[in-house]
Amino acid sequence: MKANCLSFCFVLFALLFPVTLSSQSSSPPLMPMPSHLTMGEGQLIIDGGFSVQINGYTEPRLVAARERFLATLSRETGIPFGIDPQATATTLIIKAVGPSEEVQRLGEDESYHLAITAAQAELSAKNPLGILHGLQTFLQLVRITPQGFSVPAITIDDQPRFQWRGLMIDAGRHFMPVDVIERNLDGMEAVKLNVFHWHLSENQGFRVESRTFPLLHEKGSNGLYYTQQQIRDVIRYAHERGIRVVPEFDMPCHTTAWFVGYPNLASGPGPYKIEEAWGIMDPAMDPTRESTYQFLDRFLGEMTALFPDAYFHIGGDECNGKEWDANPKVQTYMRQHGLKDNAALQSQFTARLQKLVAAHHKIMEGWDEVLQPDTPRDVVIQSWRGPTGLAAAARQGNRVLLSNGYYIDLNQPASYHYLVDPLGGEGSSLTAEQKALVLGGEATMWSEFVTPENIDSRIWPRTAAIAERLWSPQEVRDVPSMYQRLAVLSQKLDSYDLQHRTSTTFMLRRMTGGVDTAPLKVLASVVQPPEGYVRGSLKEYRTFTPLNRLVDAVPPESETARQFNELARLIVAGNASPLQWQQARDWLALWRDNDAKLQPTLQQSELIAELIPLSHSLSQVASIGLQALNDLQAHRHPDDVTIQANLQTLKAAEKPVAVLLNMTVPSVELLVNASAKQ
Amino acid sequence: MKANCLSFCFVLFALLFPVTLSSQSSSPPLMPMPSHLTMGEGQLIIDGGFSVQINGYTEPRLVAARERFLATLSRETGIPFGIDPQATATTLIIKAVGPSEEVQRLGEDESYHLAITAAQAELSAKNPLGILHGLQTFLQLVRITPQGFSVPAITIDDQPRFQWRGLMIDAGRHFMPVDVIERNLDGMEAVKLNVFHWHLSENQGFRVESRTFPLLHEKGSNGLYYTQQQIRDVIRYAHERGIRVVPEFDMPCHTTAWFVGYPNLASGPGPYKIEEAWGIMDPAMDPTRESTYQFLDRFLGEMTALFPDAYFHIGGDECNGKEWDANPKVQTYMRQHGLKDNAALQSQFTARLQKLVAAHHKIMEGWDEVLQPDTPRDVVIQSWRGPTGLAAAARQGNRVLLSNGYYIDLNQPASYHYLVDPLGGEGSSLTAEQKALVLGGEATMWSEFVTPENIDSRIWPRTAAIAERLWSPQEVRDVPSMYQRLAVLSQKLDSYDLQHRTSTTFMLRRMTGGVDTAPLKVLASVVQPPEGYVRGSLKEYRTFTPLNRLVDAVPPESETARQFNELARLIVAGNASPLQWQQARDWLALWRDNDAKLQPTLQQSELIAELIPLSHSLSQVASIGLQALNDLQAHRHPDDVTIQANLQTLKAAEKPVAVLLNMTVPSVELLVNASAKQ
Repeated sequence: MKANCLSFCFVLFALLFPVTLSSQSSSPPLMPMPSHLTMGEGQLIIDGGFSVQINGYTEPRLVAARERFLATLSRETGIPFGIDPQATATTLIIKAVGPSEEVQRLGEDESYHLAITAAQAELSAKNPLGILHGLQTFLQLVRITPQGFSVPAITIDDQPRFQWRGLMIDAGRHFMPVDVIERNLDGMEAVKLNVFHWHLSENQGFRVESRTFPLLHEKGSNGLYYTQQQIRDVIRYAHERGIRVVPEFDMPCHTTAWFVGYPNLASGPGPYKIEEAWGIMDPAMDPTRESTYQFLDRFLGEMTALFPDAYFHIGGDECNGKEWDANPKVQTYMRQHGLKDNAALQSQFTARLQKLVAAHHKIMEGWDEVLQPDTPRDVVIQSWRGPTGLAAAARQGNRVLLSNGYYIDLNQPASYHYLVDPLGGEGSSLTAEQKALVLGGEATMWSEFVTPENIDSRIWPRTAAIAERLWSPQEVRDVPSMYQRLAVLSQKLDSYDLQHRTSTTFMLRRMTGGVDTAPLKVLASVVQPPEGYVRGSLKEYRTFTPLNRLVDAVPPESETARQFNELARLIVAGNASPLQWQQARDWLALWRDNDAKLQPTLQQSELIAELIPLSHSLSQVASIGLQALNDLQAHRHPDDVTIQANLQTLKAAEKPVAVLLNMTVPSVELLVNASAKQ
Repeated sequence: MKANCLSFCFVLFALLFPVTLSSQSSSPPLMPMPSHLTMGEGQLIIDGGFSVQINGYTEPRLVAARERFLATLSRETGIPFGIDPQATATTLIIKAVGPSEEVQRLGEDESYHLAITAAQAELSAKNPLGILHGLQTFLQLVRITPQGFSVPAITIDDQPRFQWRGLMIDAGRHFMPVDVIERNLDGMEAVKLNVFHWHLSENQGFRVESRTFPLLHEKGSNGLYYTQQQIRDVIRYAHERGIRVVPEFDMPCHTTAWFVGYPNLASGPGPYKIEEAWGIMDPAMDPTRESTYQFLDRFLGEMTALFPDAYFHIGGDECNGKEWDANPKVQTYMRQHGLKDNAALQSQFTARLQKLVAAHHKIMEGWDEVLQPDTPRDVVIQSWRGPTGLAAAARQGNRVLLSNGYYIDLNQPASYHYLVDPLGGEGSSLTAEQKALVLGGEATMWSEFVTPENIDSRIWPRTAAIAERLWSPQEVRDVPSMYQRLAVLSQKLDSYDLQHRTSTTFMLRRMTGGVDTAPLKVLASVVQPPEGYVRGSLKEYRTFTPLNRLVDAVPPESETARQFNELARLIVAGNASPLQWQQARDWLALWRDNDAKLQPTLQQSELIAELIPLSHSLSQVASIGLQALNDLQAHRHPDDVTIQANLQTLKAAEKPVAVLLNMTVPSVELLVNASAKQ
């Protein structure tokens, strides 16, 4: 009795607090994995005497980086640095050869060399960018040991595979305040991402203060916008972390919010109001009027001055053309100019826009749709629509970024994103010259279904898998290793104030009204939202719909269900150890018995009442799983009627409830099918 | 077998996530309890249409309070407010009659009237202070129900019992950055405290930028000080929350840090350096030189202008007089002026200081020690040394605050602080006129053993019990009710970004290096630091000693051990239900079995290796407890040899290990003694 109880509780522990890699494992859990590393002997102890010296070239950014490094190290260890006057001489020495560019340039050297012995550490780089990266590597090496905090003796030579490694945040659909942006810039620095792509205008909101056209933010944002000072602060914040900021103002569509204040820009009759629904909308700029280009010229003048980066993203995606079709003047214009369709009309608009952007000394960037045969060679294409767009752009001689496969709003597993390679698939067939045009990629965080509260849990830790794909050598692609290191990194990111873990706890407590959240946590640990954009089809969402349900609180990928699936595969393959059999059994028993504990809470809270059938289904599926385990262990073929009934039940349990999938179902199906075959 | 396992796990859940009051209980879990409340019928639903209207008098502070209220409500519910254009008319109407003072004045009206029906809510008050308090009461009423978020229909008439309800934070010993101060001001507002007493100078640090005497912060703070702009920001932040800011510059002792830059102020020969140790130190200002008063006059001129409050705290505590004894000039002075001892010398200093403070239009406040027979009547005494000081001051005609009994750095239980009444004990023997001189009290957070990371967990939630003592009617003193409401409030304070709960999780994870923290959490849940100041005698601590051990991470009061003690008392008294017997048994089994799970982790981390004997002791004590439970249930008298051996083991287990007490011991002793007596 006691043994069973012990193992049961152990599983419960494991469930609530997933076990991660021991930090004492032989290869350090770095992410992204450096291009070259050699383990040394011993370790460098980190105590109150630890200090960081900048030797050679210095600049304010390096001094600030040292302070931030020590603050993070202090948060990670609980040790205050720089106060103890009896400090010993354990020291990290920083050596940068010279400065980096004042405005960070695409393709600047980012390499670094980090050599740690039991006595000292030295970090050297050509410029401060490499130093910033090396400091993050150092922080990832820190672990607690029986001797105290330390980093292992190691030598690392590291440099990125791709020069453009980005994260896009959509602040248009749900506004994301500056603190959200800043903590995510911290996370980006931690995994060596170097481009923050800031999606700043949408049908649902125009998010930047414009002094030239103040009705843009005054009428187009519900008061939720960044002041120009905040923009400058974020750019400086990013620059201190080795991150470029590329703004995006999506044109000529996704522009409803512009038209609330400036209806003359639009192709429709207006009036317009800020869009509240999600989806592809009809409003589009009028590309046939000179006044549109006069407006955009002045607008670009203001915004290209505000954002110092050499690149400027003009969007260009998802025009349905309906306002153009319905506007007789536009139709007349198209006939007069021989524009055969709306794509041709948009192409003409984009070509004029590109000239304006270039006149303001910026290089234009746009989504797939802007690529046309006559698109200037310096325009950068961000490929989102499918696996072939990237290769098409490179073949045409344009530089290109991959985002298809990196859509982190689609609730896909880290392993999926991880294995998408900019030079894989059709990219692998490119010539060397064409491959050189592939700059890298960007994870995209579209914000229909995220708020400032839960956005971190959608971005992290999965984006780190994409960061590794873009930084590390192409052959680094071992999925189990990635998941192990991702778990360690995810915890480390707590020290960067990211809320990807704490937000779940906070939100579950809200749902239960403060009563015991543990049974809800058990359910939460094995469910996840369906992949893709099915959510919007299951219920009507608007910009102000509260996102405070279980689907908003759980991570997009259930780590527990993933681990259980590994167990089920081992069991079915006949490769499971007795301990693994027991763990599967204990998990299933926990899930089977959870419903009885959870139901009273579900009935007390409108936020979770919709989970009643899901909780019941978990219990039912777990019972079937336990029966299948018993049959498998006893090498007993269950009767076919039972099997068919169970498979039907499981089939029914595959359907989402409250926009959530019970992720134990596929594994239990595996077990049942295996029991039927023996 | 299954039943046992279930209950075991249930207890484990309860242990990891203590169950709190259901928010649907009949009397709402308000804290502090209002002076009058009447429950109504039904509830007011809070959805996206909820809005707040200010009718009648308004000012920027009220507008800001409405925004903060909606932001907190949004965080509490996950509902965005003010965006939905189809918002219904559920509305909270705010009516203030007129303004409050520009600089908040002691004794200003703080009453409010809150009337909530199923249709609407109205909050009225004489001035914005009452509105601020009423808004916090409203937030505490919000709960999740089967119908959604709501507040119950209720009518509240409320006003404070005492006009001075303070929290002191010592930023001298460990510097507390502005974000720590601000989030604690949020917490103060939540429980209607209205004075932030900012202890700004200590032997270990002088924490304010002085433009008149810049060496004070430049040489006396290790760079850890508040700029004058930050001070002004905090004062404005506090004012927006109905909180006065009273600065303290402790004189003539606790002043080592002043002397690093200005050694001529001191009575000793110098040179001085910033103190690194804790305790009562010798350095003292030289009260015999005119230059000291000239310095202080200019210093007070600068600081009284910086802090607008009418009161100015000059400290005055803990002079050991050693520097005076050792200084021949001081001795000569004392003889020449007929000062018979150091107390008389300090008294003369304080009298001159008081005249300077008064000349700068401030009312002086000081600790017990400043009270002398000739102390001017307007000087406010803060009584800390014992239960008699307060009454002595009032009898002498001085106004007085109680802090003795409210020392939240002493690791005493909330119930202890809760029952300390400024007008209890000797205070109850005062005349009505003398009682009127008792202004209220202040919780004091001295910072030898707190850092920005864990200070919240020392202040909250226990300070809410003190806040209730100072606000609510004297007869509100039911301890079980207090603990139930405190648990609800503690969770609500998460929405104010206080880290009293999250910091423990973060710190435990650090100690284990990221591996499963659950067994450490089990140990952490039943240990607490010893009461009082024994910690410094157990190990040498200095200002830079890391405070990253288990003693720093656990709350000062073990809620689990408190609940277990209630169970043990019920069992011993023969009043426990079968469920309570089972809960006690399950808890003991959990503790008994925890050591085996925890030991491997303890051995991997230098931070927690010191817990090895404590974890073992918990297991041993729990085994004895289980045996006693069995004996009690079977009405079996154990043999006396066993009892004596067990009591000896328990006696040994009472001793602190790693500065932590195993708080299960007293309860197990109860059980063993009861089993011996039957």
